[in-house]
Amino acid sequence: MGYCINHPDRQTQYLCMKDNIYFCEDCLTCRNSEIYCKFRQSCPIWFIVKKGFKSWGGDEKPVSTEYSVTFQPENKQIKVKDGESLLEAAQRAEIPLNASCNGKGACGKCKLVVDSGNIKSEPTALLTQEEKSKNYVLACKTTVHGDITVRIPEETIERNLKVAGMGEAATKRLQGLVDNISPISIDINLQLSAPTLEDPVSDLDRLYRGLSKSKQVDTDHLNISLKVMQELAEVMRNDDWSVHASIIRKRCGNEVVAIHSGTTQEASLGVAVDLGTTSIVVYLVDMANGDILGATSGHNRQAACGDDVINRVVCAEKNGVKKLSTMVLATINGLINELIHSANIKREQIKNATISGNTIMTHLLLQIEPKYIRREPYIPSVSDFPIMQAKDIGLKINPQGAVFVLPGPASYVGGDIVAGVLYTGLHNKDHMTLFIDVGTNGEIVLGNKDFLMTASCSAGPAFEGGGVRWGMRAEEGAIEKVVISKDTLAPEIGVVGDVKPRGICGSGMIDLISEMMMCGIINQSGKFQLDENHPRMMRDDYDIGYIIAYENETNVDKDIVFTETDIDNLIRSKGAIYAGFLVLLEEAGMDFSMVDEIILTGGFGQYLNIEKAINIGMLPELDQSKFHYMGNSSIAGAYMCLLSDRYRSDARQISNNMTYIDFSSNNHYMDEFTSALFLPHTNINSFPTVMQKIKEGK
Amino acid sequence: MGYCINHPDRQTQYLCMKDNIYFCEDCLTCRNSEIYCKFRQSCPIWFIVKKGFKSWGGDEKPVSTEYSVTFQPENKQIKVKDGESLLEAAQRAEIPLNASCNGKGACGKCKLVVDSGNIKSEPTALLTQEEKSKNYVLACKTTVHGDITVRIPEETIERNLKVAGMGEAATKRLQGLVDNISPISIDINLQLSAPTLEDPVSDLDRLYRGLSKSKQVDTDHLNISLKVMQELAEVMRNDDWSVHASIIRKRCGNEVVAIHSGTTQEASLGVAVDLGTTSIVVYLVDMANGDILGATSGHNRQAACGDDVINRVVCAEKNGVKKLSTMVLATINGLINELIHSANIKREQIKNATISGNTIMTHLLLQIEPKYIRREPYIPSVSDFPIMQAKDIGLKINPQGAVFVLPGPASYVGGDIVAGVLYTGLHNKDHMTLFIDVGTNGEIVLGNKDFLMTASCSAGPAFEGGGVRWGMRAEEGAIEKVVISKDTLAPEIGVVGDVKPRGICGSGMIDLISEMMMCGIINQSGKFQLDENHPRMMRDDYDIGYIIAYENETNVDKDIVFTETDIDNLIRSKGAIYAGFLVLLEEAGMDFSMVDEIILTGGFGQYLNIEKAINIGMLPELDQSKFHYMGNSSIAGAYMCLLSDRYRSDARQISNNMTYIDFSSNNHYMDEFTSALFLPHTNINSFPTVMQKIKEGK
Repeated sequence: MGYCINHPDRQTQYLCMKDNIYFCEDCLTCRNSEIYCKFRQSCPIWFIVKKGFKSWGGDEKPVSTEYSVTFQPENKQIKVKDGESLLEAAQRAEIPLNASCNGKGACGKCKLVVDSGNIKSEPTALLTQEEKSKNYVLACKTTVHGDITVRIPEETIERNLKVAGMGEAATKRLQGLVDNISPISIDINLQLSAPTLEDPVSDLDRLYRGLSKSKQVDTDHLNISLKVMQELAEVMRNDDWSVHASIIRKRCGNEVVAIHSGTTQEASLGVAVDLGTTSIVVYLVDMANGDILGATSGHNRQAACGDDVINRVVCAEKNGVKKLSTMVLATINGLINELIHSANIKREQIKNATISGNTIMTHLLLQIEPKYIRREPYIPSVSDFPIMQAKDIGLKINPQGAVFVLPGPASYVGGDIVAGVLYTGLHNKDHMTLFIDVGTNGEIVLGNKDFLMTASCSAGPAFEGGGVRWGMRAEEGAIEKVVISKDTLAPEIGVVGDVKPRGICGSGMIDLISEMMMCGIINQSGKFQLDENHPRMMRDDYDIGYIIAYENETNVDKDIVFTETDIDNLIRSKGAIYAGFLVLLEEAGMDFSMVDEIILTGGFGQYLNIEKAINIGMLPELDQSKFHYMGNSSIAGAYMCLLSDRYRSDARQISNNMTYIDFSSNNHYMDEFTSALFLPHTNINSFPTVMQKIKEGK
Repeated sequence: MGYCINHPDRQTQYLCMKDNIYFCEDCLTCRNSEIYCKFRQSCPIWFIVKKGFKSWGGDEKPVSTEYSVTFQPENKQIKVKDGESLLEAAQRAEIPLNASCNGKGACGKCKLVVDSGNIKSEPTALLTQEEKSKNYVLACKTTVHGDITVRIPEETIERNLKVAGMGEAATKRLQGLVDNISPISIDINLQLSAPTLEDPVSDLDRLYRGLSKSKQVDTDHLNISLKVMQELAEVMRNDDWSVHASIIRKRCGNEVVAIHSGTTQEASLGVAVDLGTTSIVVYLVDMANGDILGATSGHNRQAACGDDVINRVVCAEKNGVKKLSTMVLATINGLINELIHSANIKREQIKNATISGNTIMTHLLLQIEPKYIRREPYIPSVSDFPIMQAKDIGLKINPQGAVFVLPGPASYVGGDIVAGVLYTGLHNKDHMTLFIDVGTNGEIVLGNKDFLMTASCSAGPAFEGGGVRWGMRAEEGAIEKVVISKDTLAPEIGVVGDVKPRGICGSGMIDLISEMMMCGIINQSGKFQLDENHPRMMRDDYDIGYIIAYENETNVDKDIVFTETDIDNLIRSKGAIYAGFLVLLEEAGMDFSMVDEIILTGGFGQYLNIEKAINIGMLPELDQSKFHYMGNSSIAGAYMCLLSDRYRSDARQISNNMTYIDFSSNNHYMDEFTSALFLPHTNINSFPTVMQKIKEGK
């Protein structure tokens, strides 16, 4: 039971399982009746819609006069039409506002403080009375009707913080991983002989002859662009027939993409990009030896269009795919600029790039139409990409630089998962591995050297902070560890960066729920059973929750709490993962006993407590030695593909060999999901040790 | 002896052998002392320059005020600076003015009539007193000093006339020549299966699967551009998974360059282009069966920058290669427009193009730096071109259309000669062939299936009308045949198009000189020996000549005459060709007796009298059955390459197999050239039959 998103005074049982919003009977309709929704088969709202409830509609408002909106502290001004929403204004002004639900009014994150001016705000349950009294509004639910000035509160500003787990330890693991380096784009230094009457071959033939002698490239299938041919004569003569050529090795032949006078001793560099729905990680790599010269990460600016991939596609359909591409390119190029600056190198030195992302992210980046991905039968437009050049896609490295985008086998299992498999090497192993990457989605792979099966289990963004009141990514200020004292019921917390907390990330949530359950603060349904008057308990108009950190202990001047709704969300996410494991094994005619290794990867940062993940039923109860947490495998795979042709061809093979199982049309998956909505699980026989611990109150 | 170009009253012996201009001692200097000149080794001016005469210089004039020049009958207006030449103004206004010598004041062809306004003209011997009295000026020697209006006289307007010899007979010879048609760009119609949950491969994989099943293209090495990938999703769904793809078959793999919804039954068309220095010929071809749907030709607009390739390069160095490219593209695209209009087809249907031109023409078209071609050691930048797309080079056919540019073995032997060899098939024959293409240059090939040798003999533009007072190309109004009555010494002429004559073309000149010699009008040195008072004799201030057509018989209201200077030029041209034959044979250790066949091609139109060409010593005295005149072999080879992959690869092989002999560094060539400056030759033993005829007064 929860409160209607539009009528905060009405309690209701109807929960949109996808958007995690309650609706009262008056509001009851599916918001996305045309789009792909994994929950559809068991969704109460969907069945009611199908029975004939009328659609919502009437979203457009009459617009006429223009007003100006000033955003502080940036002091950025933008013109808006009467009735335009603040979120639209912020997006146009490129104010990095966090709008996880893409303007649905569901996430409550796009908070702004109105300093002055005429606005209209819809009622919302997602602002506290205190916030309302301080003129907080939700940008998406507020329209402009006069010149106004707004301020971005601390907690709304997206910070360009380092993603935890990407520190020295993680990068050192990669160093030396690739021994036989073979970049896509190579530079070849040549000292050519000057032409004579006796040796009058054309400039181009002279170049090809030199390249052929260098034995570094196959000149039989060498292409060259008109632009390079046009420059050839001068470039070859400018430094007495000494030149260096940049050559891209494509699958269907090589291409001379640039030629310059003189030889070069400059280091050739590359970037590996983990193109996540939420976070983007970029490594700067020395192509000569694989050294990682720098690493940085940032939030995908597309987050302004929603947390999950489906919202991004909806946004692309509305605003054009180019807009989404521009947003993500701004993020990637900003990170590249940061690396160029901090490593003190020249942009032109970066001649190689690999990009590892899920299928929708790569479509949006490349401006390839993504809309059919969310419509049955869920077809991506391109799954295996040719080698491209940076200038073609807008990547701000050397314009002639080569770009390899990792291929992905299906609409909901993309290149990032292929990268993960490549990094773990499970496709080469004899023993059976179950692999899960927990990001904004949850993708599972089961297999070994003989076969690979994969599925996407729609775990939702809870582990990355989505749909959780104080949820955040594993960044500085995120609570990542929690131990609760059985005596005082007070938590001892570990925070990323050892600073005052700003919120809680996935690993913190797993710890917290496990601890609350073991201490009896919540029961196995995830409901609070602690005395209402306990100092750690919070109750407001809408929800009840546990106070993890008091106002004065935090960096946000408010209590950081974890509510029953948050717990519900987490339980659905962990249930989706567990159900995914079970059903994928079943499709292969197997069960957990036949699994030799379980590899977890994803955005948990450096820390993940396996035991506690088992306690809450996210992971199966197996010997802990079988579990391995491997961090961000997407960036690791991208790094490997950046350096080695063998790995690039492995990636293609992995993608081709994967059998995709579609859970959206799988009744059994919904059953298993429902059974998993309990701590640790409805079927307690699967978790004997956990049950024993609960019994013993450990 | 002649008259100084700058001082028409001064007689002088110094003749620039390249530009065909006399200089008095005051003016004596090489105008192009830095450029490649084939005559240099025996040039009197050059040696004097080397001895220390100071260079000309001082070409620039102070400019300030702006005036307007109006060109009639086009009524086109353009602003010019004070002191700018009328030729520069005309070129900027894109008035198609004939300026064979590129503004040197040597050809006398850029005549304009000044109707009103303030101009300054340098004195010139190239205008008659009558013309001067009618306000004729040479545009290149006239500067503007006020608003003026000029008129383009009839004889200056470049006409878009059909090149003779390209009529039905010539095109019919090609029909059916290519039996196994394999275009570069092909269209493939596909009816794909719609995706299902059971068959969820990506759009691109579905397309590739369809292409692979069609067996029309190798999908293993298939590339695709980002733009096509971006359109893929919609295009494939728009007509229920029925599509047609355009694929270019490149040397190093194929590429999907376009995809459209629905199937197409539209004929795929192609254009074959003979890119001549002077004339450009375009054929429109049905790619299904090789039918020639239309043929047209026009004058290369680059002619405004000079008649010969060297002047074009000089012009490109001065004005940028882009300008020259724009000029020639305007010509080609204009001709294509004409064909599109007359054949009533759509531009988009033209998906294939081949271009056959000499090395400098192809460099200029593609904006590839040509300047080193005219500097020792005379190196082209590119001799073998990759397949390009029309949009890349500015060809106005389907933008995605494939363009094949015929490769050429050397700076002065280009793709047009390779096309000629391909068409004649001499590279496949057992017997020994001597091939010459007489165009603005004269290129010779000697060989059979075992070897190919080639050279360029710098015949100059005389046979195409350059440097000849009434010279013109083999167009409507050109005198192409001449028989002179021994009794009356009056000529009987044949004119292209059976109209009143406007001038005389190469074949007419050969006839005329042979006839004048046989009738005793001129002696064997090419000097007039006819009585000055004979009604057919003309003498003006500068020259003496034979009147071929009286004023009232012509279309230009003036006597058409052939002067001693004209004869001198022709003798030099024919001498260059004959010397070329001899030296190339000598390089191969052969002589004329070992030659089984002599093939002539080039711009003579439909008619060439072999006997008379032998009489004047242009061709060796051999059995006439050994000679074959094959018309425009450049367009024929381009046509063959348009239709067939086999011929395209043959062309590459011919180009690769040719050994180029450079005459510019060959002393023996200059000796032979000098010996050939006599009618028929200094060595009369080589022409016993001709000598007998002369003796008998035939």
